[in-house]
Amino acid sequence: MVNASPGQLFPQSPGAADSRALVPRDGSGDTGAVESRGAARPGSAAAPPSPGGNRSAPAQPGGPGAMPAEEMGERAIGHRFRVQIIRKALTEEKQVSTKTSAADLVTETDHFVENLIISVLKEKFPSHRFIAEESTAAGSKCVLTDSPTWIIDPVDGTCNFVHRFPTVAVSIGFAVNKELEFGVIYHCTEERLYTGRRGQGAFCNDKRLQVSKETDISKALILTEIGPKRDPATLKLFLGNIERLLKAQAHGVRVIGSSTLALCHLASGAADAYYQFGLHCWDLAPATVIIREAGGTVIDTSGGPLDLMSCRVIAAGTREMAMFIAQEIQTIHYRRDDEN
Amino acid sequence: MVNASPGQLFPQSPGAADSRALVPRDGSGDTGAVESRGAARPGSAAAPPSPGGNRSAPAQPGGPGAMPAEEMGERAIGHRFRVQIIRKALTEEKQVSTKTSAADLVTETDHFVENLIISVLKEKFPSHRFIAEESTAAGSKCVLTDSPTWIIDPVDGTCNFVHRFPTVAVSIGFAVNKELEFGVIYHCTEERLYTGRRGQGAFCNDKRLQVSKETDISKALILTEIGPKRDPATLKLFLGNIERLLKAQAHGVRVIGSSTLALCHLASGAADAYYQFGLHCWDLAPATVIIREAGGTVIDTSGGPLDLMSCRVIAAGTREMAMFIAQEIQTIHYRRDDEN
Repeated sequence: MVNASPGQLFPQSPGAADSRALVPRDGSGDTGAVESRGAARPGSAAAPPSPGGNRSAPAQPGGPGAMPAEEMGERAIGHRFRVQIIRKALTEEKQVSTKTSAADLVTETDHFVENLIISVLKEKFPSHRFIAEESTAAGSKCVLTDSPTWIIDPVDGTCNFVHRFPTVAVSIGFAVNKELEFGVIYHCTEERLYTGRRGQGAFCNDKRLQVSKETDISKALILTEIGPKRDPATLKLFLGNIERLLKAQAHGVRVIGSSTLALCHLASGAADAYYQFGLHCWDLAPATVIIREAGGTVIDTSGGPLDLMSCRVIAAGTREMAMFIAQEIQTIHYRRDDEN
Repeated sequence: MVNASPGQLFPQSPGAADSRALVPRDGSGDTGAVESRGAARPGSAAAPPSPGGNRSAPAQPGGPGAMPAEEMGERAIGHRFRVQIIRKALTEEKQVSTKTSAADLVTETDHFVENLIISVLKEKFPSHRFIAEESTAAGSKCVLTDSPTWIIDPVDGTCNFVHRFPTVAVSIGFAVNKELEFGVIYHCTEERLYTGRRGQGAFCNDKRLQVSKETDISKALILTEIGPKRDPATLKLFLGNIERLLKAQAHGVRVIGSSTLALCHLASGAADAYYQFGLHCWDLAPATVIIREAGGTVIDTSGGPLDLMSCRVIAAGTREMAMFIAQEIQTIHYRRDDEN
């Protein structure tokens, strides 16, 4: 069973995909703020390209050469930032600070990349809103409205990044009328760019993604992450959930240190389920589009519809697998993103 | 503190590095059994190259063009197998069987690659001995003697491999007089070749490796693996050890599904410690040379010297970190490799 309808994520609203909100206001097609990789592809979230993996789209109202928001996100991750992030990750010592706990880390690179992404996007889309990890940590409201909104995690896997453990991603999602339109995730050290766009499939470096069809836990590889809270009660619940799944004879549980990239593995069919308590909307939003477009299910840990702000999720290749996990695991309580 | 002396691993024996044991018997330099990548580098385990990362070595007794065992191992992993393994991993359905438990998997690829590696090496070194994962599972004795011995894991991370989770390695170690001479590990999907040779450093794709110098658990990233036993008592101990390290405020614990590649991350300085119960000598031997040559410590989980056949290990960037882990974790009992 596949639960790929974005309508289950957010309420449907008429006019959700107003293409004029997704191209530069002046329609000039000016690409000066980002590096060029040839002619801009025409298209927008409101002008879906032909199905079947062909991602070129008809010309959009912004006029020839206008850059759709999706491509802006892809370019912002794909070119300007990949070089800088990789260089920093592999060669530089980092100034590390903590946020909500001793294990919740942030570096100057997180701030640098976030500011750079937002400044590039704001220049092109001055009326759009932004939800981003470090801005939220600094006190910005984390509320999703009907406005076109970019949801940004500048460095997912910051603890890995601090240790130069090579599982680190930049991820950008985009929502209009609270509906996720696309997600773009860049694996910083492996040159893998994951993209998903509502109704048009999910890709890794232009290879179409397809989730696993596994329904049997005893043949499943499961992914999870520890989360930032490390008090004894939380640790007991976290480890207890792994114990339950291993006792149910899951092949294995993997903890790779990046929620976003774990979700990309799920979208690729390289694992059968992912669950976590304590992840944020910026960890989840871009990957949710990609997983659903790869045929997967993304739900709340209760088994109900996903609530992007609830800081908890189960994603799986099949609905049966997701529901099994929902019945098996115990809830770990985290504050909602929109309560901060 | 660094514990990089191979003498601590096995008893020293005079004449341990007889170069004639490491080159083809006829000294012909015939490379017909493996693919060529240009002229064979001269050198042998007994003819160490100049220090400082220059790995070219003086001509060896086998005569010009004779291929040292190290290079044989590197070539066997690096060319013939990488293409085949990647292709199988990414495109083919696999016939999966179980070994010691429902989570201890084996595929036809494990057998195929192991047989191919052994046949290539036997052709060049007919007097050498072999310890290899699937041969041992099929009943071959797993005993390390003074004879030149190849220690082979054809597919490390078989569960990952079955799921197409891209963390899979081929690894080959070589020992003479029970002393580890070199290790070669190939990360099958990321084109990374890790090599280490006693007294001459460790490298990843020719970049010199250096372990982390971290001594403080509260700044440490720790790696471990679940192991094949999944009975309730074993799971309690496995999860209890993670709990102890997280309560000691380790930054994080990662479980990536490949002991060998986790140990390579340690050698690269991307993590600060690794421990495991239930791994085998073929998981450990090649990586041990690489870690020690990168400046790291590899010890028994008791804190004493490593016993390659004991199925347990702590590896760390510093001796202080290794000893902290040894004091913190509880023992999980596995049968020795040489008891089977």
